[in-house]
Amino acid sequence: MMATFLSCSVLHATARSFALARALTTAAPAVTLASGQTTTLPRPERVRRSVFNVPGSDERKLAKAPKLNADSLVYDLEDGVPFDKKDKARSLVYDALETVDLGRSERAVRINSIGSGLELADLQAVLPSSQLQCIVIPKVQAAKDVQFVDVMIDAVAPEANRANIRLIACIESALGLMNLRKIATSSPRLDGLIFASEDLCADMGMVRTSHRRELLYARSAVVTAAVAYGLQAIDLVCIDYKDHAALAEESREGREMGFTGKQAIHPGQIELIHEHFSPSSKEIDFATRIVEGYRAHAAQGVGAFTLDGKMIDMPVVKWAEKLLAKAQWTMG
Amino acid sequence: MMATFLSCSVLHATARSFALARALTTAAPAVTLASGQTTTLPRPERVRRSVFNVPGSDERKLAKAPKLNADSLVYDLEDGVPFDKKDKARSLVYDALETVDLGRSERAVRINSIGSGLELADLQAVLPSSQLQCIVIPKVQAAKDVQFVDVMIDAVAPEANRANIRLIACIESALGLMNLRKIATSSPRLDGLIFASEDLCADMGMVRTSHRRELLYARSAVVTAAVAYGLQAIDLVCIDYKDHAALAEESREGREMGFTGKQAIHPGQIELIHEHFSPSSKEIDFATRIVEGYRAHAAQGVGAFTLDGKMIDMPVVKWAEKLLAKAQWTMG
Amino acid sequence: MMATFLSCSVLHATARSFALARALTTAAPAVTLASGQTTTLPRPERVRRSVFNVPGSDERKLAKAPKLNADSLVYDLEDGVPFDKKDKARSLVYDALETVDLGRSERAVRINSIGSGLELADLQAVLPSSQLQCIVIPKVQAAKDVQFVDVMIDAVAPEANRANIRLIACIESALGLMNLRKIATSSPRLDGLIFASEDLCADMGMVRTSHRRELLYARSAVVTAAVAYGLQAIDLVCIDYKDHAALAEESREGREMGFTGKQAIHPGQIELIHEHFSPSSKEIDFATRIVEGYRAHAAQGVGAFTLDGKMIDMPVVKWAEKLLAKAQWTMG
Repeated sequence: MMATFLSCSVLHATARSFALARALTTAAPAVTLASGQTTTLPRPERVRRSVFNVPGSDERKLAKAPKLNADSLVYDLEDGVPFDKKDKARSLVYDALETVDLGRSERAVRINSIGSGLELADLQAVLPSSQLQCIVIPKVQAAKDVQFVDVMIDAVAPEANRANIRLIACIESALGLMNLRKIATSSPRLDGLIFASEDLCADMGMVRTSHRRELLYARSAVVTAAVAYGLQAIDLVCIDYKDHAALAEESREGREMGFTGKQAIHPGQIELIHEHFSPSSKEIDFATRIVEGYRAHAAQGVGAFTLDGKMIDMPVVKWAEKLLAKAQWTMG
Repeated sequence: MMATFLSCSVLHATARSFALARALTTAAPAVTLASGQTTTLPRPERVRRSVFNVPGSDERKLAKAPKLNADSLVYDLEDGVPFDKKDKARSLVYDALETVDLGRSERAVRINSIGSGLELADLQAVLPSSQLQCIVIPKVQAAKDVQFVDVMIDAVAPEANRANIRLIACIESALGLMNLRKIATSSPRLDGLIFASEDLCADMGMVRTSHRRELLYARSAVVTAAVAYGLQAIDLVCIDYKDHAALAEESREGREMGFTGKQAIHPGQIELIHEHFSPSSKEIDFATRIVEGYRAHAAQGVGAFTLDGKMIDMPVVKWAEKLLAKAQWTMG
Repeated sequence: MMATFLSCSVLHATARSFALARALTTAAPAVTLASGQTTTLPRPERVRRSVFNVPGSDERKLAKAPKLNADSLVYDLEDGVPFDKKDKARSLVYDALETVDLGRSERAVRINSIGSGLELADLQAVLPSSQLQCIVIPKVQAAKDVQFVDVMIDAVAPEANRANIRLIACIESALGLMNLRKIATSSPRLDGLIFASEDLCADMGMVRTSHRRELLYARSAVVTAAVAYGLQAIDLVCIDYKDHAALAEESREGREMGFTGKQAIHPGQIELIHEHFSPSSKEIDFATRIVEGYRAHAAQGVGAFTLDGKMIDMPVVKWAEKLLAKAQWTMG
């Protein structure tokens, strides 16, 4: 199988370049600055190997958040917060956004689902923070669920922060799966899709198995839509947080399927997830040779060249540069 | 894996509630009574754990139908009837509909496929019966196949019975799979989708295996579309009717994937299928606690509450009530 | 499982007949002859069990092409040709098309992908050949990629050859998968879809495994779209060309899933692939009985009849005639 793997690594560039070319086009959106001027800022794509939820009403857990080192730290207002503590959670989460230094971790918030009747108050509570970087929208069933949040950001968030806020849509219902194309193309702010297995399995009346065969179709559909439209794909959470062998197997499988990251439910899962979803030395080596080869040829006025039998042109070079940036992040 | 299973059961309510809320909205369609008045009648959803075909031209098998105890008993005019016995079968099936007491079993008829040239005579023969409860439409390739039957019901069925007739569409071709979304939303009369493996495998040139991997995509696609649009999903028939171990494995797998029932080809399969597709004691227990919890909170004027960490609101309560009604049916 | 397999073979006819009826309708397109007259010519469907690429710039390999006996021989201008040898390859391929007798093998050309900036020169180089029979289009992402080639054929190919040129679209990106329906129905010239695993795995960031589970969704999606719209489905290449056991397993699996052929990367793979993708003796026997039964009944003025419990009508008879024609080819 070495031959196959090598081949995949080597071929990584050409085909992927299509999605990447698109991704790169939207990677630097026009930004309306506080001055009213519109400009385009280079924005490094956020690396999200791990996505970790912290219950917004739990002060003890909120206090521990800065030490978790998750790529994306999600203050949860939804399922992690009992119905009678939603208001308390909104207040605590706003304060955490404003005052807590999460270091390299993304400052995200999971609101209640669109249609729950709770989402408006959630957004009004957290959007005013100038530190908010991402809204995770649960139970997305249609493009309009994402677009509602999009519009709210433009209406409520501080003008200087609007261009910084990214969106992640959770796919956790059969209807969400049927509408994947429209959801994935719903907003230029959308950065990724989360495959949320527990609620999906409930919605579909599925019974989870250890071989996960019942989820293969849905997981594949989510990765396919994500890659097709330049989004990240975040895989299911491994519920049994004590079983690191299961976590490793799931992580490996998710990586094989094309997922770019994975949800974590326990701090002890984060490091292992990072290991699995970081660029491999083989990928780093190939990307390095692409960038070096490109510079050498460009110095001679040649734009495209052949490396390991594959044509290397600008989209491939940009893919390589991006992979090296990601590799640098994962080592930092 | 216990943790995962429990979690799924517990979470069953929230996400599933979306599909259920939709299902409940359409569960009581406007009914035009014989008097000409239009009204809305509560209609309990038909439970269809087992769907069993009886050849319409076989008098001996027709006579045995009342004893089968299948949830849905389908008088077959299609593949079970030789070409030169179609007329005889139409007549026998009409008589059986009118005169035979099937007890709790649904009185359904499978017509020949739309476009076969036989379907019009089939419908003209059976729609006049005031006892008909369901038409099973084979080889559905597009929404118009379902809509044709829909229109025929309004034109031919006795006015008093029109609101009682439900439709089930069989997905058994690649084109049917490509058009799943439109088929699943083709008619308010549509109650379910049948995954018909034998004809699908023929259409696609597939070769059936004992591991059924070649069918995973198609079966998953059918369940997903069914759940997304509030329909039942009836799984493939287990051809080898003597192999109860295979039937049990298939039933378990279908249940894991989200199917709500399964076709039976032999009377000896029905009881085992019913066992697999009945609500589990765990589900019944959870639903009971939801309904009781709701009543207790409602008595105090509280509409939503938290149970096992999940928010319980009206759609969840309705899901629980429905599950308990199904449980009651399965025990009756 | 014998029962199931038999059943599938027996049922092969009815459902498949739908796709076949459509396929047959388009199998004899209106042809504009050199004289300017339009006519309809019966065109036997090209059998493509094996598809084999020969690098267009490699004179040694080009010289060996006539001995390969692949059903479809593809002169490659894309990945098999270094960037600085594209012009040389175009010239060599045009000469090969015009002068080399490939016997029963199809004379196809793989151009560079639409949008690469190389495709126009490729088409201008090879379309003028009156011997060209097929264009393989790599990295198809949307219907317009196919339609561009369609229009180029009408503009550049010799008038007498325009109706002879067929198209094959390679699905090797997530976006191609999302657009399968539109791609599969993009042109009446389209004969088939190739599932190109290596570039797909690169595009999606997948890691190939020996069990190929990560590819199941994508392969199934390609077969489903192909069958739904009357196209051939050509499966992935087995990279490790020395491992004939792996090739046999992959071929068997592809056949089980409904693929009609497979790419070959080494001459030593072709014969084994042909064995797996030829009609089985069981299919030939069944088709023979259909055709004989039809003739016997037709002699008595009967158009449709029942065989092994299945209704046999014209679409089924045409399916049987086609299968027998394919069987004859594979033996020739």
